[in-house]
Amino acid sequence: MSVLSLADVYRARRRIEGRVLRTPLIESPSLSAIAGAPVFLKLETVQPTGSFKLRGATNALADLAERGCRQVVTASTGNHGRAVAHAARALGIDAAVCMSALVPENKVGAVRALGVRVCIAGKSQDDAEREALRLAREEGFAYVPPFDDLSVIAGQATIGLEIVEALPDVAHIVVPLSGGGLFAGVALAARSANRAIRMSGVTMARGAAMHASLAAGRPVLVEEVDTLADSLGGGIGLENRYTYRLTRDFIDDALLLDEDSIARGIAHAYRHERLVVEGAAAVGIAALLDSALPDTRARRGPLVIIVTGANIDINLHRRIVHTVPAPFHSHKTP
Amino acid sequence: MSVLSLADVYRARRRIEGRVLRTPLIESPSLSAIAGAPVFLKLETVQPTGSFKLRGATNALADLAERGCRQVVTASTGNHGRAVAHAARALGIDAAVCMSALVPENKVGAVRALGVRVCIAGKSQDDAEREALRLAREEGFAYVPPFDDLSVIAGQATIGLEIVEALPDVAHIVVPLSGGGLFAGVALAARSANRAIRMSGVTMARGAAMHASLAAGRPVLVEEVDTLADSLGGGIGLENRYTYRLTRDFIDDALLLDEDSIARGIAHAYRHERLVVEGAAAVGIAALLDSALPDTRARRGPLVIIVTGANIDINLHRRIVHTVPAPFHSHKTP
Repeated sequence: MSVLSLADVYRARRRIEGRVLRTPLIESPSLSAIAGAPVFLKLETVQPTGSFKLRGATNALADLAERGCRQVVTASTGNHGRAVAHAARALGIDAAVCMSALVPENKVGAVRALGVRVCIAGKSQDDAEREALRLAREEGFAYVPPFDDLSVIAGQATIGLEIVEALPDVAHIVVPLSGGGLFAGVALAARSANRAIRMSGVTMARGAAMHASLAAGRPVLVEEVDTLADSLGGGIGLENRYTYRLTRDFIDDALLLDEDSIARGIAHAYRHERLVVEGAAAVGIAALLDSALPDTRARRGPLVIIVTGANIDINLHRRIVHTVPAPFHSHKTP
Repeated sequence: MSVLSLADVYRARRRIEGRVLRTPLIESPSLSAIAGAPVFLKLETVQPTGSFKLRGATNALADLAERGCRQVVTASTGNHGRAVAHAARALGIDAAVCMSALVPENKVGAVRALGVRVCIAGKSQDDAEREALRLAREEGFAYVPPFDDLSVIAGQATIGLEIVEALPDVAHIVVPLSGGGLFAGVALAARSANRAIRMSGVTMARGAAMHASLAAGRPVLVEEVDTLADSLGGGIGLENRYTYRLTRDFIDDALLLDEDSIARGIAHAYRHERLVVEGAAAVGIAALLDSALPDTRARRGPLVIIVTGANIDINLHRRIVHTVPAPFHSHKTP
């Protein structure tokens, strides 16, 4: 695992300090009762851009800035795009976000409102991506990948560092799994502290590229489909350089959840933790509620669930918390 | 203001460190747009017991423990009671919470679940209070007042310290106003850093004891009535020792809000900040939405709103976010 070391994570932490929150790690009475072991939630929902992505983006941009780069480009319209825009502004770097002409006006406006340049190109996310890479190649922009990048992984890894420092006895960490940047980073930091920490990656059954790649033994393509956990969608890249191998080497359990289960996770977070979370952020809680995790009672220490972000369409959230029935086992949360 | 010094606040911070969260202070794009100045939210909602009360209770109990006290008593069934119970368990102190026979079984159970002794006495909060004071007088329990106590005030003051350290240019702090423990503490810490910081206290029009006392020029009684901001209810005590004078001396604006306004604050926090907040915690946001605060554009620096807690009945919350209409001015929050 020599591509990235714990020293890189310490470097990342120094770079992002003061720009990214050291987030709360709070015990959940309702989930602890269900698990039969202490369960803690790592709340990336309170990061300034509403998701953990700010860590990796800030580290990547600060790293580029140290090396004299003054302009960056990306193609994400989601949490990574917001994070790059926010970090660029904080660091005084020019940023461009490429989007297809099909991206809805409110999303375009939201990115523009962050003070970055928006370039509209083509009619698909692939077209936008190509335009971003063209700007990188031909106009000297630095392309900031959403996950398959060592600076990005090291930035996300600071979450793992914060977990083991705050809770040295942690026995099990549950991480939403998408491109693997978060999973790889957290696993690296956690396993550096204790090789026995169990690492579970949870994702949606609908269109899980990393899960399919792990099963195939190499990066594969999957069809992208609608899911409540939209932030976990997208491919890992057939030319994946880092996250596929790191994830493969670190992961103990790769779990899939259906949409109903994700909705139950969102509803539970609201009802029992007073938290608004997006679908991608609810998968850890959902896996615990579904008893999908390996037996938590057998663990010798606490379990940590990373709650990655809050950026859900609020009307969708409202519908979910109205329509998902409360579970049979009612938890006594005051 | 010699009853309490900044050194007491530093002492409090040392005592509570590791037991209480240093909470996030995050900028709100939607509220900054409305205010025409940067607006930050201090998120006490993520404290382990779901409210800032844990700070004062932990400091008071740690202080008592240092002086050899092993059992404490209080009469609150709300955020202060939860905080005392949590702090007592963390510090290995016995705690008793006195309640009247009229307190609903689910609330009694919630306090019991925290591992503290519950004593049922009489048929009113006053009866429960009397029983708590009797235990203190006759059985050697230390009574932990909810606000009118120097250790409690010093604990809440650590919020002010965190604000000025993170945001030294802060020009204006908006604090939910109830018994005045939070307000007095935050004002003490803030004004120690900069005497020009404007201090606003916001409360509900229905049954605001401190507001009525400030108007009368002395502590007075008010009738307690139902309000969405139930955590702000209750008297300040005709024998008030500290918080009345401290609040009177520090306060620039004492603002009252009606129930509709508080509901709008709760709905805004949900829709635009992805935050579940209780009524008492929504008053700062509500005051800004209502243009009740003195002109924020004239300020020379950022405004901080303390969001004190998340402990709202979740079905009430769900009803509010379903029924409160979105305002005319729609805020561009991605």
